[in-house]
Order: sequence, then C-alpha cells, then structure tokens
Amino acid sequence: MTTVHNTAERFFASDNYSGIHPEVLAAIAEANSAHQPAYGGDTHTSRLQTVLRSHFGADAEAYPVFNGTGANVLALQSILPRWGAVICARTAHINVDENGAPERIGGLKLLSIETPDGKLTPELIDTEAWGWGDEHRAQPLAVSITQTTELGTAYTIDEIRAITEHAHRHGMRVHLDGARISNAAVSLDAELGEFTTGTGIDILSLGGTKNGVMLGEAVVVLTPGVADGMTYLRKLNMQLSSKMRFLSAQLIALYEGDLWRRNAAHSNAMATRLRTQLEERVADGRISSNPVTGLRFTQPTQSNGVFAGLPAGVASRLRAQGFHFYDWDAAAGEVRWMCSFDTTEADVDAFVGAIERELAPSE
Amino acid sequence: MTTVHNTAERFFASDNYSGIHPEVLAAIAEANSAHQPAYGGDTHTSRLQTVLRSHFGADAEAYPVFNGTGANVLALQSILPRWGAVICARTAHINVDENGAPERIGGLKLLSIETPDGKLTPELIDTEAWGWGDEHRAQPLAVSITQTTELGTAYTIDEIRAITEHAHRHGMRVHLDGARISNAAVSLDAELGEFTTGTGIDILSLGGTKNGVMLGEAVVVLTPGVADGMTYLRKLNMQLSSKMRFLSAQLIALYEGDLWRRNAAHSNAMATRLRTQLEERVADGRISSNPVTGLRFTQPTQSNGVFAGLPAGVASRLRAQGFHFYDWDAAAGEVRWMCSFDTTEADVDAFVGAIERELAPSE
Amino acid sequence: MTTVHNTAERFFASDNYSGIHPEVLAAIAEANSAHQPAYGGDTHTSRLQTVLRSHFGADAEAYPVFNGTGANVLALQSILPRWGAVICARTAHINVDENGAPERIGGLKLLSIETPDGKLTPELIDTEAWGWGDEHRAQPLAVSITQTTELGTAYTIDEIRAITEHAHRHGMRVHLDGARISNAAVSLDAELGEFTTGTGIDILSLGGTKNGVMLGEAVVVLTPGVADGMTYLRKLNMQLSSKMRFLSAQLIALYEGDLWRRNAAHSNAMATRLRTQLEERVADGRISSNPVTGLRFTQPTQSNGVFAGLPAGVASRLRAQGFHFYDWDAAAGEVRWMCSFDTTEADVDAFVGAIERELAPSE
Amino acid sequence: MTTVHNTAERFFASDNYSGIHPEVLAAIAEANSAHQPAYGGDTHTSRLQTVLRSHFGADAEAYPVFNGTGANVLALQSILPRWGAVICARTAHINVDENGAPERIGGLKLLSIETPDGKLTPELIDTEAWGWGDEHRAQPLAVSITQTTELGTAYTIDEIRAITEHAHRHGMRVHLDGARISNAAVSLDAELGEFTTGTGIDILSLGGTKNGVMLGEAVVVLTPGVADGMTYLRKLNMQLSSKMRFLSAQLIALYEGDLWRRNAAHSNAMATRLRTQLEERVADGRISSNPVTGLRFTQPTQSNGVFAGLPAGVASRLRAQGFHFYDWDAAAGEVRWMCSFDTTEADVDAFVGAIERELAPSE
Repeated sequence: MTTVHNTAERFFASDNYSGIHPEVLAAIAEANSAHQPAYGGDTHTSRLQTVLRSHFGADAEAYPVFNGTGANVLALQSILPRWGAVICARTAHINVDENGAPERIGGLKLLSIETPDGKLTPELIDTEAWGWGDEHRAQPLAVSITQTTELGTAYTIDEIRAITEHAHRHGMRVHLDGARISNAAVSLDAELGEFTTGTGIDILSLGGTKNGVMLGEAVVVLTPGVADGMTYLRKLNMQLSSKMRFLSAQLIALYEGDLWRRNAAHSNAMATRLRTQLEERVADGRISSNPVTGLRFTQPTQSNGVFAGLPAGVASRLRAQGFHFYDWDAAAGEVRWMCSFDTTEADVDAFVGAIERELAPSE
Repeated sequence: MTTVHNTAERFFASDNYSGIHPEVLAAIAEANSAHQPAYGGDTHTSRLQTVLRSHFGADAEAYPVFNGTGANVLALQSILPRWGAVICARTAHINVDENGAPERIGGLKLLSIETPDGKLTPELIDTEAWGWGDEHRAQPLAVSITQTTELGTAYTIDEIRAITEHAHRHGMRVHLDGARISNAAVSLDAELGEFTTGTGIDILSLGGTKNGVMLGEAVVVLTPGVADGMTYLRKLNMQLSSKMRFLSAQLIALYEGDLWRRNAAHSNAMATRLRTQLEERVADGRISSNPVTGLRFTQPTQSNGVFAGLPAGVASRLRAQGFHFYDWDAAAGEVRWMCSFDTTEADVDAFVGAIERELAPSE
Repeated sequence: MTTVHNTAERFFASDNYSGIHPEVLAAIAEANSAHQPAYGGDTHTSRLQTVLRSHFGADAEAYPVFNGTGANVLALQSILPRWGAVICARTAHINVDENGAPERIGGLKLLSIETPDGKLTPELIDTEAWGWGDEHRAQPLAVSITQTTELGTAYTIDEIRAITEHAHRHGMRVHLDGARISNAAVSLDAELGEFTTGTGIDILSLGGTKNGVMLGEAVVVLTPGVADGMTYLRKLNMQLSSKMRFLSAQLIALYEGDLWRRNAAHSNAMATRLRTQLEERVADGRISSNPVTGLRFTQPTQSNGVFAGLPAGVASRLRAQGFHFYDWDAAAGEVRWMCSFDTTEADVDAFVGAIERELAPSE
Repeated sequence: MTTVHNTAERFFASDNYSGIHPEVLAAIAEANSAHQPAYGGDTHTSRLQTVLRSHFGADAEAYPVFNGTGANVLALQSILPRWGAVICARTAHINVDENGAPERIGGLKLLSIETPDGKLTPELIDTEAWGWGDEHRAQPLAVSITQTTELGTAYTIDEIRAITEHAHRHGMRVHLDGARISNAAVSLDAELGEFTTGTGIDILSLGGTKNGVMLGEAVVVLTPGVADGMTYLRKLNMQLSSKMRFLSAQLIALYEGDLWRRNAAHSNAMATRLRTQLEERVADGRISSNPVTGLRFTQPTQSNGVFAGLPAGVASRLRAQGFHFYDWDAAAGEVRWMCSFDTTEADVDAFVGAIERELAPSE
C-alpha cells in the first residue's frame, strides 16, 4: 500500500480531522482477542460502567453509541414523551448540524433561542418555557445545553446549576451535549462529574470522537429513572453496535486514566497559544485590528476553538497555503479555528505566521 | 490492564462474537496518521470507491455507514417515496431483528411473506405485489432479499435474476441485504458482482462486521439514479461517521484483496465441517435421529450457519458447558450455530463431541 | 344548484357510500347556534362523555377525531411506547387499508398474523407474542382486534374475553377497532359495553361514519390510566377538530338513543336478506353452486357484509349494470357486498335478481 | 333535547368559535342524497375542482382535507424531500400552534425567523436560506408564508411576489397558509388568484373552517408538477375523508359564489369597527393611552383580528363579564380579539363599552 496522504498535515478545521490517539488504538488491539458476546454483553462494556461511575456517580448508566448525533437523539428521545419539545440555543449542534435528525428521527420539536455566546440562561429559557397543558404547543419538557458550546465558550458550574434548578422547578429535564466535555473540564479546572451529576444534569451525551477516539460516544443516564427503554431506543435508532467491546474499550482508554484530560488540556492549550500569539501581534501592530481590513475575535477562547472575523479574501488565501478551517458565518466573514489533541506548537506557529503575513497593516 | 476475558473462547453464537481480523486492524493503524478531512473527504473513502467498483462495476457508488440496520434503512429509504412499501421474507433481518427501525425511522411499510427457507420467489412476491394506484395501500415499490439468507440458505444467480426481472417488470426496485454477501459468493463460487450488479440488483447493503471488520458496512448504489439524496439521508439517519477514513480503510482491507473471500471460505468451511461431522454421526448411529430425542436439521447448510432442532433441555446443557449459540425458534426447539472467520477446526470438533455426548441414542 | 347525482343510487360498495342519517343531520343543525369554545370546550363534547359513559362505564373517556385511521393510530400510539409493536390479523384495517399510517405516522410495528376469518385467537396471538426484553425485537405490547372484522365476522363475547385475558397475562394491552361496533352489538344481541369494557378491552376506536354519521369517530379510553397524553397526541396527529361540537353532536345523535342500533340492525338485516336469498337460489338450483361457474360464499355473514366468490367476468358484468362493489381478493375472484343503514329491500332484491341472471346454471 | 348553550353568545376568541354559515349547512343537506363513491369519487369533489380553478387557474388541483394542520403538513411534505427544511416566520401557525406536527409527522425541519409583524421578506429569508449541499444542514427548499398572518397583518401582492421570485431564484418552493385567505382578499381588495397563482405561489392551504365552514380545508396545488403522491400522502397523513362529498360541498358553498367574500368582508369590517371605536375613545380621552394603565395596539388591523396590550388584570376582568378572547403574549399583556362572519355590530359595541369602562383614565 502506498502512502495515500501526507502524514505531516494537521489542520484547524475540526477536532475530528485528527486520527486515533495511540493509547486508544492500543486499547482496540488489546480488546481484539477471542469471542465476546455481542451487543454489550462483553466484559469491556461492563467495565466501562465502572469507569464512568467513577466520574459520574454510582447511579450513572452508560450506553455506547456510534456518533454524537446518535447520542443526542437517543438521549433526548429517552427523556421525552412523543409530544415533548427541547429548549436549546439557536447555535446548538442539535439545531444546526444534524440535518433535522432530532425532529425527523426523534420526533422532537426544538425551541431554539438566540444567544450571544451559545449559552442559555434561565432568563433566555423562559422565553420558550411556557404553554404547558396547551395541546397546540409542543410541550417544553427538556432543556439541552452544550458544554463546551459550539462557539468555544464554557458554562461555569454555577451557570449550569442555575439552569438545572430553573428547569427542574418547571418540570423540565436537562440534557448536556458533552461532545467536548473534556475540554470543558480542563477549561473549568473541574472534574467531569462536578458540572454534570454535581449540578443536576439528568442525561449526558459523552464525547469520544472529538478527543482522540476513532469512533464512539455514549449516552450516560445520570438521574435514575429519568430515561426509559434505553436498549430498545438505541437499537431502533440504529445505534447498537454488535462488536460493542471496541466502542467500550476506546472509551475506557479515554476515561479510565487521565487521557481525556491530557488530550483536552493539550488542544485547549493550543487554542490559547493561537489566540494569545495573535492578540500579541494585534497589540504590537504586526497584525491590523482595523475592523474592515484587520483581525477581530468574535468569541472568547475558553476551550479548543478560536472564532475570528477576517477581511474578505483572507480565508481563501490562507486555505490556498494549505491551512484548512471552516467558515462559521460566511456572510459575516467569521471563521472557526479548532485545535486537536495532536495539534503541535509548530502547527500553531506556522498558522500564526501565515495570518500575520495576510493581515499586516498596510502602510 | 489485566486480562478481562478468556482469549481461548470461540462460540457458535454469531459471526459478530468474533473480533477484528488482523489485516483489518493493521489497516486501521495504517490509516491513523495526520489529519484528514472528515465526513468522507479523506483519501481512503475515495479509494474505497475504486475498490468497490472493481467488484460492482464502474457505476457503483459506496456510502460507508456504521451498521447493518443503518445500511438497510438508508438503502430502502433512498429508493422509496414516503408512501412506499417493501416486500420481504417474514424472516428478513429488516422484519424481525431491527426493532422496527425500517418502519419507525425509515417510515416504510414492510409486506412480509412466509417462506420455507428464507428465500422469496416471483410467485411469493406476487402475493403482495398488487394494489398500485390504490391510495389505501402502502405501495409495493421495492423487494428486499437477503443473501445469504437469515436461515443460512443461498439464492442461486438464476433465482436472483428471476426476482429482479419480475420486480423490474412491475416497476419495483430490488435491494439486497448483503450482511453475509461474501459467504454467498463463496457458496456460489461466484464473484461478488455476478449475483448483484450482474443480476440487476439496484442497491446493496454491503457487509463488513460479520466478516472480520471491527465495525462498518456500506450502502452501494448499483443502478445509477436509483437513489436520491444519499448524503443527506445518511446524515439524518445518524449514520455519518466523522472520521470516516477508519470505516473505509477497514472495508478496503476486506475487499481490496481477497480477505473477504478467505474469511468467508473459512467460516463456510467450518459450518460444513460441523454439519458433515454431525451427519456422519447420525448416519452411523452415534447420534440419535429420533424426531423427539435426537438431532434434526431444519435448513440446508449453504453458508456459515447450521440450523438444527434439539430435544428439550439439550441446548441449555450444551450452554452450561460453555458453548454459546442462539435459539432460533425457541418454541420449536430450533437453534442456530454460526461459524466465523476465526472458528477453528478444534472448536468445531469439540462442539461435535459435546453434541454427540448429549444426543447418543439411549439403549 | 342542479342535481348532480342520481338520488336513487344505492350501492353495495361500502357503508361509507351512504350519506348522513336524517337524525344526525338534524343534530348538526341543532348544534349550529351561537359561539362555543373550540377544540372540545363546548357543551356537546361534554355531553358526549356522559352519553358514552352510559355505554362504556363511568371511567370511559372519549376523544372525538376525524376518521377511522386517525382513531386507530391515536389509540395505538397512546398505549404503546416508541418501541412497541401491535399484534393484529393480517386482514386488519390497520395493516392493509391505512397506507402504513400506523407505521409511518404512529411509529409502530405491526406483527400481522394469518387467520381464516379475520379473527385472532390466543393461540394465533402466541405465534407473535414473544421476545419481550430482546432489544432487537419490536416489543409486542398490544393486541388489536376488529369487531366486526374486516371479513364480516363477529367475535363472540367469550372469544374476546379469552383474548383480553391472554393479552393482559402477558402484559399486553388490547385495542378494539370498532368502526362497525354497532353491527357487532346487533349481531351478538348485546350492549356495546358488554363486549368492550365488559371483556377488558383497554381502548376503543368508536365508529360513526360507517353507521350514518357524516364524519366523525372517537377514541374511547376504557381502562383508566392506560393511555397517556391523549390531547397532545390527538393534536400532533392532526386529528383535533376546532369546531368539535359538530363531531360530538353527531356522535350524540348516534349513541344517545338507539339510532346506532336501528341503523346497524337494518344494515345487518339487509346483508342477511342478501345472503339468504342467494342461498335459497343456490339451494333450489336457480343459481349455480358449481365451484368454477357458480356462486360460493367465502365467509359467514355475521354483520352487514357478504363475502362471495364469483366466476371470472361476472363482477364486471354486474358493475356494468350499475351495481358497485369492491373486489376483495381480485386474484381469487372474491368480492365484498356491503349493506348500509339506507340500503332498501328493493336494492337487495334487484341485486339478487341481477346475480341470479348472471349465475343461472347453464343447461 | 334541551338547549345546551346560550344562543346569544358570540365571543372574540377565535373565528372557529362560530358555527356553520346557513348556506354551508344547506349545502351539506343538499349533498345528502343517495350513495356516492367514497374517497373523492363523488360528483361534488369533481365540481370543487372546477370551482377552485375559477379562482386559481386551470392547472389548480384541490385535495380536500379535515383541518388546517393537516393541510399544512400535507402541502409541505408533498413539495419537499425527506431532507427538506421550511423557512417560516417564528409566529407561523406551523411553528407554534401545531404541536410539532410538521416535524413529528411530516419529518420536516422548520427554520423559523423572528419578524416584527408576522411577515417574511427576502432579506429575512436570507438569514436562513443558505447551506445547500451541506449534508449537515436540513436543506432549505421551501418558504411558507401565512396570508393573512397570525398577527392579523396582510402581505401586499408585491410583497408576496418579491418572496416567490426570491425563493424560486434559490430553488425553493413557496407555500401559502391560507387559513384566512378570504380575509386577505378582502383586505387587499383583490381576487383570490391574484396574490396566489398570480404571484407564483406553488401550493396553498385553502381555508374553510375559519370562514363559516363546519369542517374542511383543501390543499391546492398551483404549480403543475410541484407536488408528488398527493393521494397517497393524504391517506397516510390520516386526512382522507371517506364521505368526501360533504367536505367538497361545503367548500363549493363557500367558494362557488361570493360567500367567501361576504363572510370575510363582514369579519374584517367588525374588526375595523372594533379598532376604530377604540381608537376614537383613545383619541378623545375616554380610554387611557397611558403605556402602563391604558390601551395600546401592537399590530395594525388589516383583517379580522385586533391585537392589543392591556394593563395587568384587565383581561381577566373582561372575561369575568363574559367576553372570551385569547392571550397572545401573556408575559407582555398582549391579547387577540378575533371577529367572525357572525359577529354583530352590537357584539362589538358591547365589547367596546366594557373595555371603555375598564380603561377609563383615572382622575
């Protein structure tokens, strides 16, 4: 087999452009022996329960699934009746990046709310939290928040607790989309359980793929009894893996020791490095801060992503030099630069250099 | 990490009790370098197209997905309007083993038909192929067959062609659930394309997991234009893998060379060995053929599974000795013994010995 | 407005070819005064509760809907979780005449069973009542029977009780599709509650349209607590009528006095007359009983429909004379002749005459 | 039957609190003769086509259904693939008053947009009209507007044309929710076809119930070929009426002559009277215009509804006097007063008097 890609390439497009962390790959290999009962009857899946309970408490129950969309739909469907609606931020992954799977597959209604930073608050929630008992209105019975958010921001523990208490007071459950939960823990300098189980989160989509796993997430039920029919729902939602041990082994590799934290700490640090170096160059005039021709930051950098505004044409010139990244709001010139567990300091520095060359102030 | 399971155990429960073939595992490791565009923009997924076109013809288009249920629902939904129905055997995986995903997620109606051996025929199809234009009737616009079937039998090439010609004559598309397509090719001593593209099959669920892959299948569109919106449907059906290169690399490992054939040839051979040895013992009287107290075979063994009827109590006694296998029809005492790519001759012989001890004729 | 149709035409096609019974029309007119709260807050809908409780017991709760398919899907969805399946006869309306609405809209799986006469039995139910706890299998949690059946047969009270007791013993709920419930009551010479509430039926689709109503059915919850979220489900299933008083007023007209019984008694009597007259002619040789060239009856006539087998060509010749009726099994030459509340003796006699002319024995 | 309600009551709650217009009731009675083919094979349904083509052009095809939610879901589903999304105003009935039916039953994603007055514009549409080809994004392939809007405002013909041209330029279809289409025609002093077919609207939900019909709406396909499988979709969406002649006869009564216009002209006039009288009293000081303790109008009155803001407590005191109306935004003290075809001048004057008594300026 010839080399089919440049092993030196590392992009800023997404944390799922990276591959498998070596320790995760080793865990896959180690789990590859003999026959094991399929569909979760294996020893790894049992052990995953123990591992995750060390983070999320003795009542936590984990259900490995294939991907984040699957985890979110399964989690939300399991806590809602057929007439339920989910309050979420307009920028939530469930609202903008799942091609309507929550609605089409889950049969859910999303009540999305405009936010400045991807974060809900009790006050924002109240703009949609009403109408219980009115048969014409999809019943708001759950709130879904993302931590860290799709805009790279992080809820504080107190902010989450304010939401869960508010939601519970109104009889609503709270789901946390934790595709980047490890980045949040690092950002908050907290344990995973502190801002989930500890704040009253009822159910969790636990991320794996964006933090070094080949493929695999889990729905973790935190509040006993909150979800019903999980095994049936996972199957009918086409998220039941037959050789489940390989999903579980990866998640064990990530969450049993501190790999989750090491990986997230690194990707967060790389985003901070990127942000800091750019800010320094703006401060000392090497990069223009002109609102039209210069660089601006559109969100705080609280995890592994940097959101920035670029002048017209700059994004495509950077891409032409081999730097991949996503447009976030193409009309507004906003882009997203994501760092991953394997982003290197040299990657960042090279990218900063390229940006500096493009955005040097004109004479 | 301590050893968490007995590496010597190999069961007859399912071909997904086995792990990853070493060549597939190596391919995962080899694909694990550098960043690659997510969601199928990687080089492996491109190459998979080439590999599969060598089997299925220049028009084939492959869409990797997570599992067989996902492949089946995606394939069927892509070829049917919202009012479509699928004619299938009552024993079809889509009808009995997917917790209603085709109906609940795909929005499809299944028109299932009793068969003696898991195989449809034009005559059987005609019992449900009617009522086009009647708004009250879910419109029969597709036929789905499984090759090899859930009962271990194989359609001949002529049998498939008779079905596709009949279906096409009535304006119906034909889907082939190829979870065990490699076992079928070996059984028929045919190439994969001969009984699929070659017979007019329109769309295919291409198996991986049951033949040595860790996790991964693909929907392969064979008839150009037959399916619509594949990328959207894959996403909304929650079957889009972000790090798709690892699904594709596995399928390349299986289908680029002859691993698919080697694995299937082996598992078929092991089932044949099991069947033959048992038949010899029945023939020479070491195993009873008494219809109540002895052994009977309920289906021909044309691939990697043996279907048999056992007297009451025997199944549980065999399981108590560590032999895992599934009940097929518990009420009728029918069981299924599946062989896998890693089943050994010793495994088979040990199992035969155990069966012989249980079913020796009483004096 | 000119006359747009022949007011003398009365067909044997379906009991919904007839119009509105004059007492029902009068009730619509009477309800047409002043403003009333929409969506069931009106006085007629309240009163309907009282009327239906006189039939179905003090715990009955009625939810008017538009049509039978809507009633069935709402009823079944309300008693089943998302992973539920419904055991029914292969000939059930929900299985063959609703274009997959139970599956596509309700998200339900139907486990259909071949029957000789449209009637389930505990033994037949057992062929699909298994696999609870197996995540791969749509969970059989409800049984649906139709009374009278789609084949014109009627369950006895004991037969229904045997089914409900069997189902309840296995934790399954029982739904009765009562599109022709009044015909059943007349056939059994029983009260409506005797073979529903009285036998343990949990939920009911109560017919109106096929017995003289312009448009309107109701889901009636018989077992308290068995259904959840009825008002929400009715709305999201698009079955909530704003001016509900007009549905309720019609159902009151039908069920408050004995109109339901008078209408059903008449339509049953007309079917009996049709059957009897034809049988007499067969007995005395005026109509041939030759299995190929004569008349045969394919089901007993226990309500308002006669199912018969006709020689090739006869059905179309009868239709050419202005007699409308449905093919039931076109391939087998089976037809269905339905009588309605307004079918006259003269209609029957004319039809008998026409049949006699077509099927007179050849010399 | 004793009188069950006060025939003198007429409320301002909704135009569906009123009953059936006498001409519509007469049409039901007139259609009630003889047998007619069910499911739309009757003469009235044929004639309805002719009647509606006189409004909407020779290519229009009408499909009667039960209610507005059914019409909207059927219309939108028929013009969209499974991956389609609908751009609509946040206040659209489909978004806020159908308990998620478009999502749950139609499998659609709604992309809702905040508007000041319930009306979309090309610029507002552009905030969601993007992302075609991106598999993660529900594809915006239709725009839905309501005329008159849920806020009582009316699009001008030019405003609609600007939307349809903009939408079509981007490959999107345009649906018009015409639950109050007659009120719009009166408001614009236009024919029904001028602002629908004439502006390029592709498909229409044609209202009946809110303008004097007992029960019945229709989906009208305006652009040939834009919708697919209408009869199948109507059936599976549980909107197929068996005795369809009675739906069609009502719609004929409404739309064949000028009843649609007479009714709408009257209800619009009553709303204008209500608004004008209140404004006069505000102008001359009989009603306070104090922003906290007085009356304010929150939307222009362009059809049959008046939207107003009331001080705390006033709404409940008015209701205690027997005046029914809905809260629109309870938190903001906004209420909706709807007039109907049978609202009288005396009703309005009595209501104005009551409001005046409540909102007289304090000394």
